[in-house]
Amino acid sequence: MPTGHIMMAMSLDGFVARKDHALDWLMQIDTEGEDHGFLTFQESVDAIVMGSGSYRTVLGFDDWPYIKPVIVLSRSMRRNEIPSALRNKVEISQIEPADLMRELGGRGYSRIYVDGGAIIRSFLHEGLVDDMRIAIAPVLIGDGIRMFGEIPKDIELELQSVEQFSSGLVQLQYKVR
Amino acid sequence: MPTGHIMMAMSLDGFVARKDHALDWLMQIDTEGEDHGFLTFQESVDAIVMGSGSYRTVLGFDDWPYIKPVIVLSRSMRRNEIPSALRNKVEISQIEPADLMRELGGRGYSRIYVDGGAIIRSFLHEGLVDDMRIAIAPVLIGDGIRMFGEIPKDIELELQSVEQFSSGLVQLQYKVR
Repeated sequence: MPTGHIMMAMSLDGFVARKDHALDWLMQIDTEGEDHGFLTFQESVDAIVMGSGSYRTVLGFDDWPYIKPVIVLSRSMRRNEIPSALRNKVEISQIEPADLMRELGGRGYSRIYVDGGAIIRSFLHEGLVDDMRIAIAPVLIGDGIRMFGEIPKDIELELQSVEQFSSGLVQLQYKVR
Repeated sequence: MPTGHIMMAMSLDGFVARKDHALDWLMQIDTEGEDHGFLTFQESVDAIVMGSGSYRTVLGFDDWPYIKPVIVLSRSMRRNEIPSALRNKVEISQIEPADLMRELGGRGYSRIYVDGGAIIRSFLHEGLVDDMRIAIAPVLIGDGIRMFGEIPKDIELELQSVEQFSSGLVQLQYKVR
């Protein structure tokens, strides 16, 4: 079974995006010249799993930011919605998280990047996340898509590292106990 | 007008207490020998404002942790609910946040410690908070009393310092812009 890994930015009040998936509050922070380790992190994983909301947000970026295969977990998305330039990089799956992880293990994958609010929550709740890197943005946005949701019981974490950036971002790395 | 200052611990998912005000998730973290600066912070303020929920939680502690005058903002609490040993340390007020701050300014107070989820939210929303020290506990509790709530518009923060403790607590200090 591969391990799940999270690298995500959230506002100090715990949102990964506004309700409409907008990231303006994050994009307006001047992080020029800062290396938050995204490329190194991405190089450490074998594939990326995300929901359709995150996929559509990323699709709106100027450049496709992923260098690894992307699996979009969605019951409603169809393959013909994927732009042809991305068809060899993106696949759609309807499999449940644990089954998907087993399937990805069968492909020889050992580390999976778990991305996007709803997907992160479901993988966390099912105990499929090994560690997480959370960049806390210096802003309160009040409402939006929560990074974490309700859970059947507490999830204890072990702090592994703290990194502070001049933009005001603080990246916390935790191992899930 | 005095300035408001926050020093609060929250779970990584943004809760200051469970729904029933319980702090067991925080208390079980072994912070022995760590100085999170609570005494220094408390010495820097002239008075403490909190809600009745926080007051009742603190009342359940073995020792009264405050060395400064405490004002409990409550419409329902009555003076005879305060144990006699605390009557010279605790007063009840029903004044709105901004008016209370002006009144406390009239007493010669310049720095007010704003404590407790609901009170923090209302003081933040009214622009009465100057800075905050937030200790992030390495745990997800899923549900409870949120540290931050909905706000009419984004509140931008300026990161001032980051301190990491061996317990896994990380204390972030922000100035409200």
